[in-house]
Amino acid sequence: MGEIEFVKPMDIERRSFAIITQLLEEQGRETEGVNAPVLKRVIHTTADFDYAENLVFSPGAVETGLAALREGCDIVTDTQMARAGINKAALQRLGGSVHCFMSDPDVAELARERGVTRAAVCMEKAAALQRPCIYAIGNAPTALLRLREMLDAGELDSCPPVLIIGVPVGFVNVVESKELILETRVPHIVARGRKGGSNVAAAICNALLYQLGRP
Amino acid sequence: MGEIEFVKPMDIERRSFAIITQLLEEQGRETEGVNAPVLKRVIHTTADFDYAENLVFSPGAVETGLAALREGCDIVTDTQMARAGINKAALQRLGGSVHCFMSDPDVAELARERGVTRAAVCMEKAAALQRPCIYAIGNAPTALLRLREMLDAGELDSCPPVLIIGVPVGFVNVVESKELILETRVPHIVARGRKGGSNVAAAICNALLYQLGRP
Repeated sequence: MGEIEFVKPMDIERRSFAIITQLLEEQGRETEGVNAPVLKRVIHTTADFDYAENLVFSPGAVETGLAALREGCDIVTDTQMARAGINKAALQRLGGSVHCFMSDPDVAELARERGVTRAAVCMEKAAALQRPCIYAIGNAPTALLRLREMLDAGELDSCPPVLIIGVPVGFVNVVESKELILETRVPHIVARGRKGGSNVAAAICNALLYQLGRP
Repeated sequence: MGEIEFVKPMDIERRSFAIITQLLEEQGRETEGVNAPVLKRVIHTTADFDYAENLVFSPGAVETGLAALREGCDIVTDTQMARAGINKAALQRLGGSVHCFMSDPDVAELARERGVTRAAVCMEKAAALQRPCIYAIGNAPTALLRLREMLDAGELDSCPPVLIIGVPVGFVNVVESKELILETRVPHIVARGRKGGSNVAAAICNALLYQLGRP
């Protein structure tokens, strides 16, 4: 019946991370720094070691994200899948909650009226919360583009993003949209290139959350 | 402000698939057969061309899945993220619905009592539906292991899985669990090796659904 070995659920993750750490060490990668838990969890979620090359952290991005989460900041995301994947119990313990406005009827209507994407309208709706937020973008390059436009126009000055997690995946405008965030001085964690996704966005959020305690 | 080009949302996917097709052709891959739309959508979701090598289709798996969906079969999945990602409107049009039992209190309790994973109990609960189902497993190797055990014991004979989508991701027991499904005669689509995930499971379901119409 194959060679499945019984491993207690709680031990599977620990063992997985040990394997990931070992494989990263064999590639001569950093496995101890403040960014390492984020990289490791992204690899845990994708089994894709390309992220060791692609994942770009602005200086202090992880520390800034952790400090804001500890103070109860919210997370805004552009997909229901990322919302489903983020550990909401861990976030709620700290006083934060997850927002995804993509299915809101007013967002769809405004997007149609103005001929823009729903993701772009969602970023405006998130900014209007006037709450400290981590923007975790796993799908829509236009979300990142809109954030950059609003940053450049000073429209986020009264409540700037705590951290932008810029990890859309894809083949059209995706690479460019991530470069637009990499150019900013807003704290960011970006998967340079085509790769990323809702699962990666959720994994990065959870990697931060789990450093602050796991319910 | 970078080089973002305006592309209508509805055109982005078409253009993405054209790029994926071209890149697959450059690698000498099949881009026209019945399995190609599934492979392309998985690459669209991950930007990871390793799936051209990893994704294994049993003969007739796609045709079987399409026929069953057309007749209103359900989809069972082992993660809330995959449930969030599957296009439920497309499935409901055909008469099917998505089940994910992972958060059910009775599942947690039974798993604890018996010292097994929740995913294993979920497979039993799905089998008890006695409805034609596609099993889309994006996370838990123990779900695939339990399915194999039930298959071997004849416990699924009265209502066998329509199709097993076996795409857990990870480093512990994952590779082996997928080999256990590859050995069976149940129609299957399996991502051989470590890679996969909830996003991949949802993408495969949607690739099938979208061939039957997109709401």
